[in-house]
Amino acid sequence: MRSDMLTSILSDLNGSSTDIEASGIVSTDGLMMAAELPAGMDEDRVGAMSAAMLSLGDRTAQELGRGTLEQVLIKGENGYVVMTHAGTDAVVTVIAKPKAKLGLIFLDIKRAAEDIAKLV
Amino acid sequence: MRSDMLTSILSDLNGSSTDIEASGIVSTDGLMMAAELPAGMDEDRVGAMSAAMLSLGDRTAQELGRGTLEQVLIKGENGYVVMTHAGTDAVVTVIAKPKAKLGLIFLDIKRAAEDIAKLV
Repeated sequence: MRSDMLTSILSDLNGSSTDIEASGIVSTDGLMMAAELPAGMDEDRVGAMSAAMLSLGDRTAQELGRGTLEQVLIKGENGYVVMTHAGTDAVVTVIAKPKAKLGLIFLDIKRAAEDIAKLV
Repeated sequence: MRSDMLTSILSDLNGSSTDIEASGIVSTDGLMMAAELPAGMDEDRVGAMSAAMLSLGDRTAQELGRGTLEQVLIKGENGYVVMTHAGTDAVVTVIAKPKAKLGLIFLDIKRAAEDIAKLV
């Protein structure tokens, strides 16, 4: 099943680094397609915030001459949220710890996004 | 004059890397406080998009348990927009080229943001 394959990609992604706390695949209209979230993290909330950030990020990239949006990163004092386009119809959202090694995480996300793009 | 000092910090920041195309200091309500932008890049547009991204970034960081917002990064196929809090009342927005070395730029922005926070 396709949803099992998507969940499996997220499990591998979360397992690739102890810095990754959670991940999800969200359609560009904000609906969750697959998720590997810890207890207490709400799917709908992750989906809604991901879609809203991607929509505004897309507009910002266009308005400021940066072309088609590829990724939005949010850094807070308690960690990161990284939203990355996986093809045109889906976004992979990763929630990571404050001291995460961004270079490694970006690489793992890029690979996961390529795999996801083939499935959605 | 304080506005000259802010502009001078931006000039130094833009000069620190050829990857930086433009920079500006925006109040958290979206008004431009200082800017070093190339011809054809609109101040009001940079201010408005920065304030909108920061506002939604702040909400996203809160909703997904990342704490107080520090930075938002947007990656497009034609480059980056990096928005970084400089104290609580201002944001420094940097627009950079697609192949920019993010590690170096983050370091330069962090130093500029610390200097700006002392002035605003």
